[in-house]
Amino acid sequence: MTKPAYVAVDWGTSSFRLWLIGQDGSILGERRSGEGMTTAAQTGFAGVLQAHLDALSAPADIPAIVCGMAGARQGWVEAGYIDTPTSLAAILTGAVAVPGQSRDVRILPGLAQRSRQAPDVMRGEETQLLGAIAADTKGEQLVCMPGTHSKWVRVVDGQVMGFSTFMTGELFDVITKHSILSHAVAGSANMPTDTGAFEAALKAAFDKPALATNLLFTARSGQLLHGLTAAGAQALISGTLIGAEIAGALASAGQGASIMLVASGRLQALYEDAFRTLSLSHKTIDADAAVRRGLSAAAEAIWLKNESKS
Amino acid sequence: MTKPAYVAVDWGTSSFRLWLIGQDGSILGERRSGEGMTTAAQTGFAGVLQAHLDALSAPADIPAIVCGMAGARQGWVEAGYIDTPTSLAAILTGAVAVPGQSRDVRILPGLAQRSRQAPDVMRGEETQLLGAIAADTKGEQLVCMPGTHSKWVRVVDGQVMGFSTFMTGELFDVITKHSILSHAVAGSANMPTDTGAFEAALKAAFDKPALATNLLFTARSGQLLHGLTAAGAQALISGTLIGAEIAGALASAGQGASIMLVASGRLQALYEDAFRTLSLSHKTIDADAAVRRGLSAAAEAIWLKNESKS
Repeated sequence: MTKPAYVAVDWGTSSFRLWLIGQDGSILGERRSGEGMTTAAQTGFAGVLQAHLDALSAPADIPAIVCGMAGARQGWVEAGYIDTPTSLAAILTGAVAVPGQSRDVRILPGLAQRSRQAPDVMRGEETQLLGAIAADTKGEQLVCMPGTHSKWVRVVDGQVMGFSTFMTGELFDVITKHSILSHAVAGSANMPTDTGAFEAALKAAFDKPALATNLLFTARSGQLLHGLTAAGAQALISGTLIGAEIAGALASAGQGASIMLVASGRLQALYEDAFRTLSLSHKTIDADAAVRRGLSAAAEAIWLKNESKS
Repeated sequence: MTKPAYVAVDWGTSSFRLWLIGQDGSILGERRSGEGMTTAAQTGFAGVLQAHLDALSAPADIPAIVCGMAGARQGWVEAGYIDTPTSLAAILTGAVAVPGQSRDVRILPGLAQRSRQAPDVMRGEETQLLGAIAADTKGEQLVCMPGTHSKWVRVVDGQVMGFSTFMTGELFDVITKHSILSHAVAGSANMPTDTGAFEAALKAAFDKPALATNLLFTARSGQLLHGLTAAGAQALISGTLIGAEIAGALASAGQGASIMLVASGRLQALYEDAFRTLSLSHKTIDADAAVRRGLSAAAEAIWLKNESKS
């Protein structure tokens, strides 16, 4: 069996994922937990990492490459931002070493768009991008990375030209938990199951995004007047927010670019349904695989191509 | 001094307002409290009303006209809805008597728009409308009643043609209390004080409402990258939501109609600033006065013009 070469860590706000990667690039072990930045900032980042490495019996001196919120100001060590426009490869140059560790731990920086009109930041998604798009890719790509804060990134000839964050996932969460619409969705599943209601709301919000906050209210009035179900109300809220997001992303990026969806699991299925419903052609890349590939690209650039330095 | 003729009550979800009206139409007494439907549904509607009447030493047999959520299914007695399109005067015909009371208590119905595409309901605002617009008003009016759930109503020659609810106030509330942006606004005042940030966000969202959920995120990224203040972030969120609301209301109603703003206090000032910033001409009517006038019109139609019936 191949020997372990390095550890790749995607350390988000509320989630921790680790892969032990072999010298031939194969995955030798994997760990997932809820010990994201919020938890680790209290219990200690080094201890969380060590415990997972111990569980995989990883060598004591194996280096670790980390992306995500562990590099935020309130994280382990602040890794700053690379400013757009930038090449994807420039992310590699911004990796910050964590001092005082027994192993070599590097945290990748985020991306910042410092425009006055449209300031924006990402942390973690830049590594997904690195894994999703080959540096020598020609032409324009519009990359959609859905989630709590969906990111839409415009990449031209391998350069990140700009990006926009849409608060879709978080708005869905606070609206269905804390607004009057929490009554309308009570008892429904976590993800839309009423495909018809999802697609109708998606189209309505995509066609008239200005009516998004009006469409949301029809989750309540539809129940009062037409017997809309809880599953229907939930799908309507999800479809409205995603429809408005896609309209906004295409409005700011232009409609000419081909869409690359970087997502996993149920969120991937939801956005694929959305693009099909809106007749928008797209290509899908698995988000888990993308972030792992991005971390591996960084690890290889830092350690395998610079072995003389270490 | 004129003798008391009737009691007018605006009974909302979380607020209670009562006026004792004299035979000459003057206000003889006023009460305000937080005993809205939510509270009164638990403590008893009749008791809340009686306590406020006792405080004003109102005659035991004086009739009461009520509008608002007291007429909802979960209220005192369900007063149903009048369907649009409808004349404003038709609201009067839908008043429901509360059975088993020592005095004559009537609750006004709400309005329902039963369209499949755009179902909508209002309860309380129809009485504001009745007080804001004379029944013989000619031409098209677009009436804006901002609040937790802002209502925009299209009135043509005194007929309510249709209306749209925008969840502006409630979205502002859940976003600033429960989303990641709660950190961005921490310590700011209850209403926007950063006029520049409010107007810039208002214009941006009005021009590109599809970007509303992206603009919201700039309350966070603007703080990370440009030192946006808490007051600035709060004004940005408020301006974004109101800008998208106005864009949506004008998109669905057409831009030809003249806007009538029915609002009081700080919300009135905020929307007046918004209309000025967007160069939209408007006329303002005080919401408190409008609902009182609407209740008085109903009381006069029910009791003063039909005295032979009682």
